[in-house]
Amino acid sequence: MIPIKRLAIIGAGPSSLSLMRAFRIAQLNGAKIPEIVCFEKQNDWGGLWNYTWRTGTDEYGDTVHGSMYHNLWTNNPIELVEYSDYTLIEHFGKSIPSFVPRAVMFDYIIGRANKSDIRKFIKFNMRVESVVYVSHKFTLVVWDKKDNIMFTEVFDYLVVASGRFSVPYIPEYQGIITFPGRVLHSHDFRNAEQFKGMDILIIGSGLSAEDIAIQCWKYGSKSVTIIYRHKPIGHNWPDGIKEVHYLENIEGNIASFRDGSQQTADVIIFCTGYLFYFPFLENTLKYDYTQQRCPGLYKGTVFQNNHKLFYIGMTTRLYPLLIFNLQAWFVRDVIMKNLPLPSQEYIDKDISHWLSKRAKLNFPSDRLAYETDYVNDLLLLLSGYPKFNFDLLCQYRLVLREHKRRNILTFRDQSYKSAVTGTVSPCRLVKWVDAKEESLESFLDSKFV
Amino acid sequence: MIPIKRLAIIGAGPSSLSLMRAFRIAQLNGAKIPEIVCFEKQNDWGGLWNYTWRTGTDEYGDTVHGSMYHNLWTNNPIELVEYSDYTLIEHFGKSIPSFVPRAVMFDYIIGRANKSDIRKFIKFNMRVESVVYVSHKFTLVVWDKKDNIMFTEVFDYLVVASGRFSVPYIPEYQGIITFPGRVLHSHDFRNAEQFKGMDILIIGSGLSAEDIAIQCWKYGSKSVTIIYRHKPIGHNWPDGIKEVHYLENIEGNIASFRDGSQQTADVIIFCTGYLFYFPFLENTLKYDYTQQRCPGLYKGTVFQNNHKLFYIGMTTRLYPLLIFNLQAWFVRDVIMKNLPLPSQEYIDKDISHWLSKRAKLNFPSDRLAYETDYVNDLLLLLSGYPKFNFDLLCQYRLVLREHKRRNILTFRDQSYKSAVTGTVSPCRLVKWVDAKEESLESFLDSKFV
Repeated sequence: MIPIKRLAIIGAGPSSLSLMRAFRIAQLNGAKIPEIVCFEKQNDWGGLWNYTWRTGTDEYGDTVHGSMYHNLWTNNPIELVEYSDYTLIEHFGKSIPSFVPRAVMFDYIIGRANKSDIRKFIKFNMRVESVVYVSHKFTLVVWDKKDNIMFTEVFDYLVVASGRFSVPYIPEYQGIITFPGRVLHSHDFRNAEQFKGMDILIIGSGLSAEDIAIQCWKYGSKSVTIIYRHKPIGHNWPDGIKEVHYLENIEGNIASFRDGSQQTADVIIFCTGYLFYFPFLENTLKYDYTQQRCPGLYKGTVFQNNHKLFYIGMTTRLYPLLIFNLQAWFVRDVIMKNLPLPSQEYIDKDISHWLSKRAKLNFPSDRLAYETDYVNDLLLLLSGYPKFNFDLLCQYRLVLREHKRRNILTFRDQSYKSAVTGTVSPCRLVKWVDAKEESLESFLDSKFV
Repeated sequence: MIPIKRLAIIGAGPSSLSLMRAFRIAQLNGAKIPEIVCFEKQNDWGGLWNYTWRTGTDEYGDTVHGSMYHNLWTNNPIELVEYSDYTLIEHFGKSIPSFVPRAVMFDYIIGRANKSDIRKFIKFNMRVESVVYVSHKFTLVVWDKKDNIMFTEVFDYLVVASGRFSVPYIPEYQGIITFPGRVLHSHDFRNAEQFKGMDILIIGSGLSAEDIAIQCWKYGSKSVTIIYRHKPIGHNWPDGIKEVHYLENIEGNIASFRDGSQQTADVIIFCTGYLFYFPFLENTLKYDYTQQRCPGLYKGTVFQNNHKLFYIGMTTRLYPLLIFNLQAWFVRDVIMKNLPLPSQEYIDKDISHWLSKRAKLNFPSDRLAYETDYVNDLLLLLSGYPKFNFDLLCQYRLVLREHKRRNILTFRDQSYKSAVTGTVSPCRLVKWVDAKEESLESFLDSKFV
């Protein structure tokens, strides 16, 4: 008898839940699956969607994973991340608006996980401290946070699904050491109400900067100044939000910008993104997307130098949950040998091909084309993947950009059509700009038209 | 030829600096010392005294060690922590007041380290990820943060000097998840100016609570409410600071206390202390002071079950730098076999004796007696330790308590006499309550009388 192989997964966020579900479906269809052990450092599943009020460290002294704020709403229409094997209608029992509060999104992700009977695979409050690859096996040293003990386990396969938006990148600026106000990263932003009446500086021009700016505006900050390094976001901002170029220095509570203008600040919020953070992996197993070099990931998942090592949920921005799910299916099929890997030569060439494609990305439209190609590439490989209208989702990226450009305060009030069921989402009577505090219940019970 | 033994030290704070200095002095006196490698996760030495503006994680994604705030002043007279082998006069070239800003204290600690030529032993930006004890050796897995690589080294001895006040303990309170204000631990408190005009809740009644309360008051917070669990601090607080018993719950931004009273809050500051945090040590090497059980530490340093493992800087509150230094001398002498360890039976008995002594500590005066006994016990063992008047320091603990009781706003303006040189400290013309922003230079150049 062939001994059952052992698979370790680090993290129980959306990517990992997709992977465990994929294995579970195979099992229900009669296939033999590996023994799965998922180590999750939080006390519950859902990754970033598992909201915490904590910042810094948790009750065990471990770093807090969560980067979400209490009143966060999705910034993509939920149709863009709808699972084609678990539709919105199936979960909610009715059509819901396209943009939803955090709790609603969490409920949808968890609803699918619950249906899949995969919680039994997960060990909570366990942090993987180190991984070495010896004698064709992965040895994991794990810290059991609750019992405060360290233990070791050995696995045949390892999937790193520890997330991409949890360890902040915080650069240094001249004068920040004597800034008398508050300094935080968006990772530690928990609600906008506490910034009411204050002058806010936001460093960065990505999605966090955009969203935290309008959150602070919405909850009554006195002024919001977004500081970009290369290009402004460029929306038609409401009164009270402005964009300026480049932070030269801070003296006392006054920030000076490249054009010589200045702004008094009570708070500086770094919206400067997140690190690829794998100190626990031995050097030969580490992946670094930002370096744009080898070792890379074949099809965004299989580690170039070790085909028993996989990363999921690392390489996407525009189709988050969708790509996680495609990657999960792909990884499952590779591990179960339903999808044989090509030769190392082919793999190396394919990785180089995608790396050089990526090196040429200059504009948002380039990135959209790149990620769209990537999804189509995965879909070609995954013949049995549940059907959905991907072309529609590509269009939604453009539509969304246009809606934001038209009005950053109303883009969340728009309606989209499901790419799985064709249902057109209702609109909510209360507009986003007027919605202040929403629970799962209050949102689902509110009036849709 | 006997091969040179290798000693690893985790951390380069005051305890560690004392230990390296002790070895260096032995070496200068002609003794053969082990090869010392000190792994420090920060980019400079000084431990907590190495101030950082950062909170949460550093530029590499590692947890921030620092717990100090910009305008922190010592809460002990500096005479209490004066090194008898490196006097205040020797360092500063003149008498200075007894209570000093953070930067002055840091300068003193570092001045002694600089004189000892020990920086060469330290590897900065290195975090120890795991330690196992195999074949009579300690194998350390270390993360080199700057180059983002993991490496392994083997040592004969290990000294854990990673600190006691760096990983916060943060309990959960009912309603905190929907509190619309700011929540932080004293570990992340960087200055009081940012809390001007706000209603502050402080949870806890230890030294952090006491000091952060008067800092917030001094820099203009609207109100400060200190919430104690067992006993109030009991000072004569100035108007604007009050103490209340037990936080029952928080609803919105209103906190309710045991006596039924309520307080609106903008900010909640947890002054709830720090964790003993050794997830990187394998289970058989872990020490836990809070459990008050074996395995314990012989003379507060030698690990009961493994006499090649030492902890320093873990077991004291009242004579911090002094005890660190005594422990350092003791550990050096044990490692160099100048102080032979007694039998295991004696060690076990001695540890039990001190554990049962400690279990009976009920009042502050008990703790003072306990720690005073401990210092005297160490002094008896260390015959060559540089002379100082320890009885005077014991009195200072009582005097300090009395000064605080009389006036928490003026205790830092009092004068003490050096227990090493007998010099009486001058007083400063500007009183602590009026001193807002102090650098090393501005303090040393100011008028003393």
